[in-house]
Amino acid sequence: MRFAAFFLDGASRAFNHRPTFSKLVVVLAASSGGLVAYADSKSDAESSQNAPKKKVVVLGTGWAGTTFLKNIDSSLYDVQIISPRNYFAFTPLLPSVTCGTVEPRSIVEPIRRVVNKKGADIKFWEAECFKIDPTNKKIHCHSDIGTNLDGTGEFVVDYDYLVIAVGARSNTFNTPGVEEHCHFLKEIEDAQKIRRSVMDCFERASLPYLSEEEQKRNLHFVVVGGGPTGVEFAAELHDFVSEDLSKLYPAIRDLVKISVIEAGGHILTMFDKRITKFAEEKFQRDGIEVKTGYKVVKVSDSLITMQNASAGEVSVPYGMAVWSTGIGTRPFILNFMKQIGQGNRRVLATDEWLRVRECEDVYAIGDCATITQRKVMEDISAIFKVADKDNSGTLTVKEIQDILEDICIRYPQVELYLKSKQMRGIADLIKDAKGDIQKESIELNIEEFKKALANVDSQVKNLPATAQVAAQQGNYLARCFNKMKYSDENPEGPLRIRESGRHRFRPFRYKHFGQFAPLGGEQAAAQLPGDWISIGHSTQWLWYSVYASKQVSWRTRALVVSDWMRRFIFGRDSSCI
Amino acid sequence: MRFAAFFLDGASRAFNHRPTFSKLVVVLAASSGGLVAYADSKSDAESSQNAPKKKVVVLGTGWAGTTFLKNIDSSLYDVQIISPRNYFAFTPLLPSVTCGTVEPRSIVEPIRRVVNKKGADIKFWEAECFKIDPTNKKIHCHSDIGTNLDGTGEFVVDYDYLVIAVGARSNTFNTPGVEEHCHFLKEIEDAQKIRRSVMDCFERASLPYLSEEEQKRNLHFVVVGGGPTGVEFAAELHDFVSEDLSKLYPAIRDLVKISVIEAGGHILTMFDKRITKFAEEKFQRDGIEVKTGYKVVKVSDSLITMQNASAGEVSVPYGMAVWSTGIGTRPFILNFMKQIGQGNRRVLATDEWLRVRECEDVYAIGDCATITQRKVMEDISAIFKVADKDNSGTLTVKEIQDILEDICIRYPQVELYLKSKQMRGIADLIKDAKGDIQKESIELNIEEFKKALANVDSQVKNLPATAQVAAQQGNYLARCFNKMKYSDENPEGPLRIRESGRHRFRPFRYKHFGQFAPLGGEQAAAQLPGDWISIGHSTQWLWYSVYASKQVSWRTRALVVSDWMRRFIFGRDSSCI
Repeated sequence: MRFAAFFLDGASRAFNHRPTFSKLVVVLAASSGGLVAYADSKSDAESSQNAPKKKVVVLGTGWAGTTFLKNIDSSLYDVQIISPRNYFAFTPLLPSVTCGTVEPRSIVEPIRRVVNKKGADIKFWEAECFKIDPTNKKIHCHSDIGTNLDGTGEFVVDYDYLVIAVGARSNTFNTPGVEEHCHFLKEIEDAQKIRRSVMDCFERASLPYLSEEEQKRNLHFVVVGGGPTGVEFAAELHDFVSEDLSKLYPAIRDLVKISVIEAGGHILTMFDKRITKFAEEKFQRDGIEVKTGYKVVKVSDSLITMQNASAGEVSVPYGMAVWSTGIGTRPFILNFMKQIGQGNRRVLATDEWLRVRECEDVYAIGDCATITQRKVMEDISAIFKVADKDNSGTLTVKEIQDILEDICIRYPQVELYLKSKQMRGIADLIKDAKGDIQKESIELNIEEFKKALANVDSQVKNLPATAQVAAQQGNYLARCFNKMKYSDENPEGPLRIRESGRHRFRPFRYKHFGQFAPLGGEQAAAQLPGDWISIGHSTQWLWYSVYASKQVSWRTRALVVSDWMRRFIFGRDSSCI
Repeated sequence: MRFAAFFLDGASRAFNHRPTFSKLVVVLAASSGGLVAYADSKSDAESSQNAPKKKVVVLGTGWAGTTFLKNIDSSLYDVQIISPRNYFAFTPLLPSVTCGTVEPRSIVEPIRRVVNKKGADIKFWEAECFKIDPTNKKIHCHSDIGTNLDGTGEFVVDYDYLVIAVGARSNTFNTPGVEEHCHFLKEIEDAQKIRRSVMDCFERASLPYLSEEEQKRNLHFVVVGGGPTGVEFAAELHDFVSEDLSKLYPAIRDLVKISVIEAGGHILTMFDKRITKFAEEKFQRDGIEVKTGYKVVKVSDSLITMQNASAGEVSVPYGMAVWSTGIGTRPFILNFMKQIGQGNRRVLATDEWLRVRECEDVYAIGDCATITQRKVMEDISAIFKVADKDNSGTLTVKEIQDILEDICIRYPQVELYLKSKQMRGIADLIKDAKGDIQKESIELNIEEFKKALANVDSQVKNLPATAQVAAQQGNYLARCFNKMKYSDENPEGPLRIRESGRHRFRPFRYKHFGQFAPLGGEQAAAQLPGDWISIGHSTQWLWYSVYASKQVSWRTRALVVSDWMRRFIFGRDSSCI
């Protein structure tokens, strides 16, 4: 109990009383500070000092893969990275790239440079994995580069451990016409295409002999999805139009219209209501139309059709549309899921140690997977049995306290539940179950124990698909790999509940450091842990400093900052290249 | 004679004795300093103050078109620009863009920004002209932007004066396979494709299970054409490989090969022999293979086939090829030439005032046209007649001197001839024709006059297809347009030889300020007027300062300089985007 109370108090103190900046500069940072832990039921670690190094194959060079790569000790493993992109992209700045506030090359770092900096012998192959064969521990890849590679460009790679970090794809929810007519915003190429397309719309609308109606259609920019990406893009586009393009296209500047279409009741629903309200009001002042409660059902080359509960089906002409409604699983991952018996799931599932369920030696991190947290109620009898050391059939407070630390590590929802109910420790929980009684004399039977923990599983939530989560997972997994041998003999994890002994590592635990929503006009909103909200111009400057500090190298940091300065001085470029 | 002597002496003094830098900073500058002149046989200028402004339509936003645009007085004309590119590109830096020494956006300036800076009401349309109708004074355009413009995207524009400045296209000399398999280097997009392609070759060669032969093929970079562009690209690529890529691709760095294939006997033949020799020796030291005397006859997806007088036909495998052998005429210009009776020519011909021959009110500047200089010998009888004021049948020295200034302006080859023979004036010329006699007593009959001038036409040369020429032509033509009305009444040009009176303007006269050839490794060569040669590291710094000073705006200047600095500090980016 002491541990739990300390942890909760400490955490809440940190969130509420520390200066803001020290919290913010570690947003997205992957260093979790405390001991990280890892559990593996099989003892398949290195057998001897002289054996060849085990092969770790990493798929993907996004946040998860690159952070893993930066932290893995390549003297212990033979590491290979496979990705269709030979660079890491700082994706949180992608919306800025769409309008030229930041140049695409300023936010990318060649993966070979990352490898070089480590001074490590790590192999990189620019290729795409299209099939995983977990039975034979092989992955099948093909290279998309050029057409004149001899043969089909296919090759096979063996692995001992596989780390899947391929990210996700945009989810169209099978809406007809989206693939053909909408832009996505997941890759550098997407951002470049959007930039070109925005300029094309302006040039097209400027052509002679066009009716005003036709001009208006070309200058109607539609963003489908009111999440952080869509909202940031709409804000960037509005800035681009009002600060730069209106001077260069004076004849048509009043015909520009930006719309954000959101199926839910509000935009930015994952943020605090105050931020949502501020964003909606700011967009209204800026003339950005926010259509909430509208679901897009069809997209043609010139019309977007949407449905609304009261208005029915509405079609609006548009010039360019960006689709940003959520993420889906990549096809080859779906195939892999069928192979390993996860065919009825929508996303690849891992356990709390990021191991793919029902598949040995395969790990999945980042947007391509979700952690399925074991429920307390599934294990409640086993927990009771482990805690009940004297086999009395009842638990004393001391017995519960003895096991509570392990329980909180193994089932983080217990801690979240205590926090959400503003309980200080186990005593409060028992109070709820048993009424107000003397602490020392409590004895709980299994039914009372179940009652006390009945609601904790409501706190189990999926992690958001953010860079912050992916980076923390990559870092966690690399550290587990680095001390796998040591931890085999010195397990650090919590008590095993269903089996005997301890887990090798602690399970992965996500630390949320806050999230930004830039809203244009040099204003941003930030939501930080502890319900701390910051909105306005100062938050935008905070955003600048955090995003500059979080760059992956000094090179990209210098480039991004110089891009921002350049934009301040010269504005954004409007050339169609 | 005084004029000619002064001009020649002055010019030669300036070229030989002035400090180098003051000469260099005006390289490519379009301000010619002296009075520019323009001639037009028809008096079709503005009829009255109240009449609507005449429409000047400019095709193209390259060096010629943009310089014209910057200098035209838009209060006098209704100016419209039509180009498929909505920006001006500083093309001399294109080879730097191919390897990321400079970013593409750093060398482009949106044409609307140029217009905005003038504060002028000039219209720009992003479209491509596909047909000129000189009879009805109309041009037919179509827009390539997007596919969902209503109709075909075609429109027609009327003009009173048409300025063709569309540049040239790469010339494949109908070599089979070039269009399909080779890169060109004329546009920003070309440079971007080459950059991506270089990186693709490296990533392809790094793939596992490739034979060394296959790796070598992928890493064989071929440049066809040993002109300044091809040589500069080869040098840039060599720097990119040796300074940046060799660190990131250590396993394959020794397999890289760069070849320059040139049909002639040497590379950089338009430069002084000392520069050619230096370049060839430097390339040999750098390991760049220079194959002179080889003519490429066929290109397939993996082989380049070339012919050599002694070796016969040779085929070499390659990974990437850049074709840079010269320029050709655009198809719609060829059609236009047929319409106006120039069908048997290869390039659009203009007179010395940049008017398209056999076509009223149409001008052509830059790489899309050549000036056909009238020969002295064609007009020799008429010249004699004009000079022989007293109709004596013979010319005295005074009579020749009286007309010499006009002759030198109308036929610049006379001046070039005197200079090439190191003659100080007309006396020397006559000496050649008549022997050493007392100057005052000379009298020349028509045959002796013909004999004296018999060889001057050998000095007629086509201007090179450079940015320098195009910019000077654009500037010259804009100034002519600006004072067309004044010059109608106050002709400034030389005496008409076949008709009476004077020409309205002086003909266009090109001033050569020198040319650079960057050779890689921070070394460059420069050839300046007066046979002044500069080679080495200091020349590279000169190159930096000249190219920085010649940027079209402060914005691009700042960007280009910061790109250079960035390259010095961080190296070039190798991401495949």
